Amino acid sequence: MSESRDEKLSFEALRGMLTERRRERIDHVVRRRWQSLTVVIEDLRDPHNQAAVLRSSEGLGLLTAHVIDTPDQHGRTDTFDPSRGVTKDADKWLTVHKHRSVAPCVASLKEQGFAIYAGALDPNAVSLYDLDVERPCAFVFGNEHRGVSPALRAQADSLFVIPMRGFVESFNVSVAAAICLSHAVHTREVGGRITDLTEQEREALRRRYEEKSLGNRLLRAAEAESRAAGGVERKDA
Amino acid sequence: MSESRDEKLSFEALRGMLTERRRERIDHVVRRRWQSLTVVIEDLRDPHNQAAVLRSSEGLGLLTAHVIDTPDQHGRTDTFDPSRGVTKDADKWLTVHKHRSVAPCVASLKEQGFAIYAGALDPNAVSLYDLDVERPCAFVFGNEHRGVSPALRAQADSLFVIPMRGFVESFNVSVAAAICLSHAVHTREVGGRITDLTEQEREALRRRYEEKSLGNRLLRAAEAESRAAGGVERKDA
Repeated sequence: MSESRDEKLSFEALRGMLTERRRERIDHVVRRRWQSLTVVIEDLRDPHNQAAVLRSSEGLGLLTAHVIDTPDQHGRTDTFDPSRGVTKDADKWLTVHKHRSVAPCVASLKEQGFAIYAGALDPNAVSLYDLDVERPCAFVFGNEHRGVSPALRAQADSLFVIPMRGFVESFNVSVAAAICLSHAVHTREVGGRITDLTEQEREALRRRYEEKSLGNRLLRAAEAESRAAGGVERKDA
Repeated sequence: MSESRDEKLSFEALRGMLTERRRERIDHVVRRRWQSLTVVIEDLRDPHNQAAVLRSSEGLGLLTAHVIDTPDQHGRTDTFDPSRGVTKDADKWLTVHKHRSVAPCVASLKEQGFAIYAGALDPNAVSLYDLDVERPCAFVFGNEHRGVSPALRAQADSLFVIPMRGFVESFNVSVAAAICLSHAVHTREVGGRITDLTEQEREALRRRYEEKSLGNRLLRAAEAESRAAGGVERKDA
């Protein structure tokens, strides 16, 4: 569907409200986004960990993240609620797909051609450094205590471990995610690629990010105008 | 100095108390230790962050870590106090050098031939991936709010940044440390090296770790014996 001429004009007009610096920042990000690398966190319960994984993922250039939040035997679900102070707005720029169980998450990833790499202490696990990280792949990290669920392990293309060289037996989950994802992104960069988006996809993403940025600016501008006009009761009044 | 025959005999006898599994574990670690790669944390204030950096460092094979804990203008010092639940005993296996200011830390590192790489948002900063990580080097991470101090920046061989591909402007400090240190260790492994200790140094380290392991076992054995003999009042009695 093509946009109407009016919509185009108004967006172009609004776009002028973005500072040069902001537009450069958006451009920088859009040119470094990966849709063929994603992360799955399964039943992470610590809001700090949830937030830290999202923040690292966004900062490393991922476009999406998947959150599996399984209800317990009583049907209760732990709300996915990443610490706001830790995400640093990462979840605003990352598309976070939420799933209530393993099956729809796996089905969606497989349909999109992702290999599923599940971090798991297992005799069959291979080293992170032996995984093919150039192909579309999803890194899965499990619950802080139970690890990745048997259901998800069974569906994984590979189980992997980060080689442990010391006495500690594991890394914190947000550290583990950062080690894996930074390795994948860096490997791709060394191979000469910094994004997998087509020019058309980059253009659509640029517009989405500009709209999000404008959203905040417009809101702030409206608030400032309203305050100046005395039309808004201030909390400290 | 050579040990007396008696000392040797008794250590050999004690050594027999270590399980085969424990000795294999110690051997695994000793063969993967790096003395020419270290980490410096300067005035980190969050005990969770302090602990997470130590845990990652130990797990990645570092032999030492440096902690700079500078007193404020009133002479007060924030006690370095990593969360016990987070370190996972990492500080037991890592030699942690504590410094009250930048100067002695830098002097000690330079004397040992370390290049100092300070993580800092700075126009002169280079990419992590352009640093020479094969040579002896120390990665420095600064306070959560102020970053690395001007005094330490001035002494650094290089300022560096981890390339940021997204909108978030920085990574959590423990994530940043893990990205840098795992990159350095992996680069060395790809280059064919998994340790820089000589056979003699490995032997000394093996003995130190065996003694530490024995220390715990002997303590537990003595406690169990004492309890069995009714010689210790139990807390729950």
